[in-house]
Amino acid sequence: MNLSKYKIAIGQINTTVGDLDGNTEKIVNAIEKAKQHNAHLVVFPELAITGYPPKDLLLKSSFIEKNREKLDEIIKASEGITIVVGFVDVSETKVPRDIYDISSRFYTESRILYNAAAVIQNGKLIGKYYKSHLPNYDVFDESRYFETVKDIPLFSVDGLKMGVNICEDIWIDEGPTERQAKQGADFIVNISASPFYAGKGNIRRELIAKRARGNSVPIAYVNLIGGQDDLVFDGGSYVFDKKGRLIAHCRRFEEDFALVNLESQKEVILKENLIKDIHDALVLGIRDYVRKNGFQNVVIGLSGGIDSALTTALAVEALGADSVLCVLMPGEITSKSSVEDAQNLAKNLKVKCKTISISEIFTSYLNTLKKEFKNRKSDATEENIQARIRGNILMAISNKFGHLVLSTGNKSELAVGYATLYGDMAGGLAVISDVPKTMVYQLARYINQTNKTDAQHPITGLSYDPYGRPVIRPAGVEIILQNILDKEPSAELRIGQKDSDDLPPYEILDPILQHYIEENKTKVEIINLGFEKEMVEEMIYKVDHNEYKRKQAPIGIKITPKAFGFGRRMPITNKFK
Amino acid sequence: MNLSKYKIAIGQINTTVGDLDGNTEKIVNAIEKAKQHNAHLVVFPELAITGYPPKDLLLKSSFIEKNREKLDEIIKASEGITIVVGFVDVSETKVPRDIYDISSRFYTESRILYNAAAVIQNGKLIGKYYKSHLPNYDVFDESRYFETVKDIPLFSVDGLKMGVNICEDIWIDEGPTERQAKQGADFIVNISASPFYAGKGNIRRELIAKRARGNSVPIAYVNLIGGQDDLVFDGGSYVFDKKGRLIAHCRRFEEDFALVNLESQKEVILKENLIKDIHDALVLGIRDYVRKNGFQNVVIGLSGGIDSALTTALAVEALGADSVLCVLMPGEITSKSSVEDAQNLAKNLKVKCKTISISEIFTSYLNTLKKEFKNRKSDATEENIQARIRGNILMAISNKFGHLVLSTGNKSELAVGYATLYGDMAGGLAVISDVPKTMVYQLARYINQTNKTDAQHPITGLSYDPYGRPVIRPAGVEIILQNILDKEPSAELRIGQKDSDDLPPYEILDPILQHYIEENKTKVEIINLGFEKEMVEEMIYKVDHNEYKRKQAPIGIKITPKAFGFGRRMPITNKFK
Repeated sequence: MNLSKYKIAIGQINTTVGDLDGNTEKIVNAIEKAKQHNAHLVVFPELAITGYPPKDLLLKSSFIEKNREKLDEIIKASEGITIVVGFVDVSETKVPRDIYDISSRFYTESRILYNAAAVIQNGKLIGKYYKSHLPNYDVFDESRYFETVKDIPLFSVDGLKMGVNICEDIWIDEGPTERQAKQGADFIVNISASPFYAGKGNIRRELIAKRARGNSVPIAYVNLIGGQDDLVFDGGSYVFDKKGRLIAHCRRFEEDFALVNLESQKEVILKENLIKDIHDALVLGIRDYVRKNGFQNVVIGLSGGIDSALTTALAVEALGADSVLCVLMPGEITSKSSVEDAQNLAKNLKVKCKTISISEIFTSYLNTLKKEFKNRKSDATEENIQARIRGNILMAISNKFGHLVLSTGNKSELAVGYATLYGDMAGGLAVISDVPKTMVYQLARYINQTNKTDAQHPITGLSYDPYGRPVIRPAGVEIILQNILDKEPSAELRIGQKDSDDLPPYEILDPILQHYIEENKTKVEIINLGFEKEMVEEMIYKVDHNEYKRKQAPIGIKITPKAFGFGRRMPITNKFK
Repeated sequence: MNLSKYKIAIGQINTTVGDLDGNTEKIVNAIEKAKQHNAHLVVFPELAITGYPPKDLLLKSSFIEKNREKLDEIIKASEGITIVVGFVDVSETKVPRDIYDISSRFYTESRILYNAAAVIQNGKLIGKYYKSHLPNYDVFDESRYFETVKDIPLFSVDGLKMGVNICEDIWIDEGPTERQAKQGADFIVNISASPFYAGKGNIRRELIAKRARGNSVPIAYVNLIGGQDDLVFDGGSYVFDKKGRLIAHCRRFEEDFALVNLESQKEVILKENLIKDIHDALVLGIRDYVRKNGFQNVVIGLSGGIDSALTTALAVEALGADSVLCVLMPGEITSKSSVEDAQNLAKNLKVKCKTISISEIFTSYLNTLKKEFKNRKSDATEENIQARIRGNILMAISNKFGHLVLSTGNKSELAVGYATLYGDMAGGLAVISDVPKTMVYQLARYINQTNKTDAQHPITGLSYDPYGRPVIRPAGVEIILQNILDKEPSAELRIGQKDSDDLPPYEILDPILQHYIEENKTKVEIINLGFEKEMVEEMIYKVDHNEYKRKQAPIGIKITPKAFGFGRRMPITNKFK
């Protein structure tokens, strides 16, 4: 077969971890579609059968076995086509992986696992490739589960030599891609589950272009799409010709199916919009967390501030206004303008909004604790009580009606502990907990701006989104009101309170936090960048001493290179200064 | 030097993660003590300088550098003695460890790290050993940080050939210990940070005995002691002669210093008492978490049930009665006997006990939510509101007085989600969250029993603990009253409620949970052991569907081979049945 006539289909599917049946169904459907389009080859993401990352499900023998059974189903569907699909392979050798359990009553043999790609053709498994570079940093734990082999094979398909490698493999200089190219691969397929952070699309695209160009080999790169707990896989699968020119791609943040010839195609130019990407990642992250976990509706506490406004706007885009319930919980300190702003936001977004005052409950707490707190000044305690009353009310609504609580705290607050555990931190998903406060404003402005320029739906008069689905917000309207954008940030938990009483301006705090958390710079290095010494010391102290709060935070959607949560593993007991 | 005259000192110290100054001070003090006793060699645990596990502190260059400076201090203290001590070594080669960041603005070079043992003598670093088997399962993440080398050297000290290896290395069949023995080692030192679970002491001792016997080589095994977040290191350092006979050991669950000759010693017989060990681990875990995090006092919600009774008894042993505040928070459903039992327990333990009724607050919640919940039946919502009021009150006391909240839920509850997030789950440390309910009873009985037989303090008439410190409980008294042991478990959140309304008897539930969680058995395997099919299915469903609650649980003290938390990494979004 001449490479120029070779037709590849890319099945950029949205898998769900553990949904072996559903994932396989999607794979088989895409195979059928590829056949209908007379594709020679169809490729699917890394661990497409199991979903990614399967984590400790990999330690369950029944999980591994069912994944093998599903591979057999896919093999049966391969008549007349070649398939590359990710699965978990298992060696027949049984070994004691958990060394400590050797002599214990809990010892069970476990088998050696591989993060594998199956090469399937005409009803037969004609080859397997085992991932040779296992990521084991940040959110990745692959050395916990998988072994590697040194074998980097090529596969003969339709008279062409195909190299296959998996995700991390292609990021390695002088790694499998080089080796396969040197062995004479006519083209290379990389199957990935590469999670999003802002800016990663460009990095990824440039890297794969470099691999194609440097090795004079066409590369088809298929990436997973979908939200899985804290991670969003952004898709954007690419095909590069051997000159490193992008000749085809899938859309990002949605399922897609592409057909491409590896040669004689025009170059495509792609540009990233950082804020748009973050917006799309958050929307997808919400939608998939909520839907894949079987929820119909969410409930959000609306304060009149920008964080809850943004969270609500994103939730409406993700789920539709009918699925979003807002609850406004004013207390004695809540300003009139906060109430109005919150109500107007709800009106703009056409979401239901209930008002439930916390005053009576707060009074009853103060009464109940009066004796214990006698002669003690009012302090953060009373502020936290109010936040926790709101948390309790939202959870009560969640319990009574089955709505998932979305919490609304941003990354800057979470970093320095400017949040109440079990209060505003309460919820099932912390939507913007990896979004620094300054970026919260950028996202709000982006939503306002796109809304003004959005196309209008011919019948409803509403905007519709880039995927052609009508969105609830009325076109041309500023969703997040100027009032909300302009007001000074405040938790409104004591009279006259402002964030700036306790924290530096976010324009200064956010870069400090980025240097410390994302770039892992030392205190001295940050001070040397020109930040005030005392401020840097105080903020780093706050970051370090709030690990216990973050331990108990809900999962949040990762959009930066270093989010709090699974990818950042700090001890709580820690005397390092 | 004749081996029979060679005197080894074991410095079984309690390090704190990140406390490089404090840890080094302990090391230097023990070196001085070893010199005073004319020891030739003194040995310290794995990563003694940094504390274990340092986790992502290892990614901070300032942390690594300071650890190297501290090693220099130890080297200076080594005149006239040989020292083996754990530290983090760093290769001069700089590599991009975080591959994904290669092209990003956040890319920083990082250096190759080794989990190392320094061999120091007379003011000089005479050798280094790098751990060659990195544990990367359960709670261990060492592949995330460290590299290995193939070199397994011997060190020449005082005319003897010494093999050194680190923790996991000695668990490996045909591993470093065999290789060092074959190279002619006169004795082997293993430095460890081996965390506790019930039964591990015996497993560890038998394993090291086997290594000594099998290789005809004496082994000095020094283990870390102390609590670090969820882990308790139980010490119990051992010395075996070349026949595999135990000839010396350190105490468990406390700092110790032992002097030993590798030959001509009598055999020592040790026996483990599982329940005593668990008890001691929990006491140490509480004490170190509270003290190392700088807290003076703890506050515990007392219900009259056995879980909070046990937690309080353990806290009193760990911290002294003066450091424990109990709060009884009766509601409308709380029985008179619960109040009495709780008060009697507090009296027995001589702890302060406050009573704060939740009735007024609960009424105010019901009032406030009346409109929203109109025409809805009372259900788990109202139960959870009560639990969360209690959580809020405990947190208010914590905020106002700086006490750490200890939560009181057991493992059985946490497994099946029979606990209220932000309610009874609220706290800084979940003391018995790895203790199954049936074991809660065993521990309570153990405390009663030892208390009866405890030695009486000559002056105060109080018991004193194995470390000679007076404990608060009056000798001879049954601490956890028979009433508490006898009553049927109930959350007392609705009238007539019993745990058995929702759960099988704990005598049946606990083995099912052990098979599923600790032994990783499949549903079918558990049913085949003779458990009722529907019950197994329902309980496994509950375990799987409460991952989101456990994500937000406080850390708990690990006492089983598989605790919830850091060592069990399950996805929340998970459709695997």
